[in-house]
Amino acid sequence: MPEVYETRRARLRDRCNASGSATALVSRPANVRYLTGATAPGAVLLLGRTEDLLVHGVAPEAPAGVPQGGVRPDETLRVHTLPGPGGDPAVAAAGLAAAQGAESLAVEEHHLTVDRHRAIGSVAPGLRLADVGGAVEQLRVIKDEDEISCLRAGAEIADQALGELLESILVGRTERHLALELERRLVDHGADGPAFRTSVGTGPHSGLRRHRPTDRRVEEGDFLSVRLGATYRGYRSEIGRTFVIGTSPADWQIELYDLVFAAQRAGREALVPGTACRDVYHAACQVLDSAGCAEGLPASTGHGVGLEIDEEPQLAPAAMGKLDACVPVTVEPGVHLPGRGGVRIDDTLVVRPEADGGPELLTITTKELLAL
Amino acid sequence: MPEVYETRRARLRDRCNASGSATALVSRPANVRYLTGATAPGAVLLLGRTEDLLVHGVAPEAPAGVPQGGVRPDETLRVHTLPGPGGDPAVAAAGLAAAQGAESLAVEEHHLTVDRHRAIGSVAPGLRLADVGGAVEQLRVIKDEDEISCLRAGAEIADQALGELLESILVGRTERHLALELERRLVDHGADGPAFRTSVGTGPHSGLRRHRPTDRRVEEGDFLSVRLGATYRGYRSEIGRTFVIGTSPADWQIELYDLVFAAQRAGREALVPGTACRDVYHAACQVLDSAGCAEGLPASTGHGVGLEIDEEPQLAPAAMGKLDACVPVTVEPGVHLPGRGGVRIDDTLVVRPEADGGPELLTITTKELLAL
Repeated sequence: MPEVYETRRARLRDRCNASGSATALVSRPANVRYLTGATAPGAVLLLGRTEDLLVHGVAPEAPAGVPQGGVRPDETLRVHTLPGPGGDPAVAAAGLAAAQGAESLAVEEHHLTVDRHRAIGSVAPGLRLADVGGAVEQLRVIKDEDEISCLRAGAEIADQALGELLESILVGRTERHLALELERRLVDHGADGPAFRTSVGTGPHSGLRRHRPTDRRVEEGDFLSVRLGATYRGYRSEIGRTFVIGTSPADWQIELYDLVFAAQRAGREALVPGTACRDVYHAACQVLDSAGCAEGLPASTGHGVGLEIDEEPQLAPAAMGKLDACVPVTVEPGVHLPGRGGVRIDDTLVVRPEADGGPELLTITTKELLAL
Repeated sequence: MPEVYETRRARLRDRCNASGSATALVSRPANVRYLTGATAPGAVLLLGRTEDLLVHGVAPEAPAGVPQGGVRPDETLRVHTLPGPGGDPAVAAAGLAAAQGAESLAVEEHHLTVDRHRAIGSVAPGLRLADVGGAVEQLRVIKDEDEISCLRAGAEIADQALGELLESILVGRTERHLALELERRLVDHGADGPAFRTSVGTGPHSGLRRHRPTDRRVEEGDFLSVRLGATYRGYRSEIGRTFVIGTSPADWQIELYDLVFAAQRAGREALVPGTACRDVYHAACQVLDSAGCAEGLPASTGHGVGLEIDEEPQLAPAAMGKLDACVPVTVEPGVHLPGRGGVRIDDTLVVRPEADGGPELLTITTKELLAL
C-alpha cells in the first residue's frame, strides 16, 4: 500500500509549504517508517517539492533480491543508497538537497544531535536550516483503520499470551522467568517482538509501572502485576493487569483493587472526542484523590500508542490539546504502597464517538480481581 | 566501590581542566553510569571543579528505602532530585551550574539533541557552552580488571546458554524460537538480560551479521549461525558461531567454514598492544581477499565492547589509533553467499601483552565445525 505513504508525505508537504520550508529532512526512525514504510537502520527521508528521496546506508550482506528494511520506491519516492559504509544518510541527504538547489531545509531538531546538525550545516553551507518540529509526530496521532487493525491484532496477541500464563502454576517462579515466558508467548502468537520490556512485579514490587523483573519468586498472598505488549507490523500497544496469588485476597487488597479499578474505569469513560487530555487524567485521579491517595498520585495516567509505545497525546495534568476520534491511548492508573505492593490496571483503547459505541477496548482480558 | 567512580571522575576533571572548561555536563547514559554507577533513566552528571552533582528525575513510585538506579552519593558526589515530574535533568543541571557561578559548560554534543542544547542555553544564558566531545568514551576504552571480570562472567553465561542449545533438537525449530530460547537461558544463568537482540540465521540467512530471526525452520543440510551475548552488571560481550545441520557438511560448506575460520584466526592473532586497529581488519580481510572474496569484504571485522555493545575501537579500514592492553574487542569476520548462506565466527577477546600470554579469549565455545 505505497499510496498510503504518498498520502502521508503529501500532508507533510502541505504543512512544510505552509510554514515556508519546502524541503524537509526526516530522521527519527518511527517518522521515516510512517512516511515511507522503511525500517532500514539510519534511513532518512528528504521531502522535496514534488518528489521525495529515501537515503539509506549500505547493507553489503543483504541477501540478493530481498528488499532491505522496507526500502522500496513508489510513484513519488526515489531511493538513494550511500556509496560506501560509515556515512551518515542525514548528511548525505542535506548535500543532495543543496545540490538540487534547495534554499532551506527543515530538520527534526528534537531528534538530531548537535554534532549531526553541525555536519549537515557543514556539508551544505548555503542551506538555511530550520526546524520541522513535531510535524510528523502530529500527523501520527490520528490513526487510520489499517493502523488500528495492527494495534488490535497486537492487543489480541498480548491477551493470548497473558491468558496462557494465568493457566500455569505461578507460585515459586521468579519475576524474570515470568517476563521471559510472556515474551516468548508473544512471539509464538505472531508478534514481531515485545513492544517494550515486559514488567512483572510480585509482592512489594507489584503496582510499580516500570518495575524491572528481579529474581523474587511469587509467594502466596502476593499481588502480582504484569505489564506487557506486542509489536505487530511495527505497531505497539500495552496491557497491564494485577492479580492476587492464593485462594482469597486480604481485605486491603480488595479495597485497593476496587479503588484502582474505579479510577481506571473513570479514565476509560472520559475517552470522548473533544475531551481535554488533562481531563482524562483528572477523571482517574479524582477517584484516587477522594480516597485519600493524593500524595501518591501518578505523574500521568496514560499516553498515545502507535509506531512507538509512548506517543502523543499524554494524559497528564500539564497536557494541552483535546482527544480526537481514532486516537489510541492507554489508561493506566495505579497505586503503590511502599513495602506492601500495589495495583495497576492498564488498557489500550481507541477513542471513538459515542455514536459508534464509545471507546473501543483493544485489550479484552478481564479486569475482575482474579485469585490465582 | 565508589572510589572507582571518584577516580574516573578525577581523570575526566583533569581532561576538562586541560581543555579549559572546568565544568562539564555528561548526559549519555553509559557515560553517566561509568562515572557514577547510576542507571536511573535520564540521570546526568554535572562535573564541577571539586565536587560533582548527579541530577535525576523523580521516581514517585520508588519502594521506600530502595536506592533507585544506583543513585547514591559518595565523597565527591552529591545527588539532586528534580522537584517534580517532566523536567529535563540536563537543563536543570545547567541551571545549577550557572547558579554556582560557572562560566562555561562542556556538554556532549554527540549525545544532546539540538532541542535540548537550546533549552540548556536558554536556562543559563550567561553560560558559554562548549563540547566535551568523546572524552568519556575515550576513558572507557581501556578496562580495569573489575570491568574485565564482568565481561568474562557474561561471556561464560553466553557459552553456557549456547552449549545447552546445541544439546537440544534443532531441526524443525524456527529462528525466532531458537533466539528466544537462547535469551531465556542467558537470564537463567544470571545475565541482566541479552546484550543485544539475539540473531539466529538458518540456511540462506546464515552468516548475516544483523539478521533478524524469522519463522524459517532449521532444515537438514543448513548452515545455522547464531550471535548472542549476555549483559552482566551492565557489561556486554558477544559470541557468534556457525554450525551445520545433519551428519556431514557439504564440500562448499567445509571450504567456506575453513576460510572464515582462517580469517578469524588471523584477526585474533593480530590483537597485540601497539597494533593499528585497521591492521587487525586487514589481517582478517587479507585471508578472505586472497581466496577471491574481495567483493564481499565486511565493512568492519570487530569493535570494542563494554557498557555498550559497540564501542571504540573500531576494527575497520578507516579506523585511527592503535590497540592498547586491557581493551576488549570482538573479532567477527564472515562471508555470506546470496541464496546459499554463509559463515560468521565471532569472539570477544581482551588485548594482552605477549608476556601475559597474548590475547585473552573470553568466549571459549569451540570453533570446530560441529555437525548437529
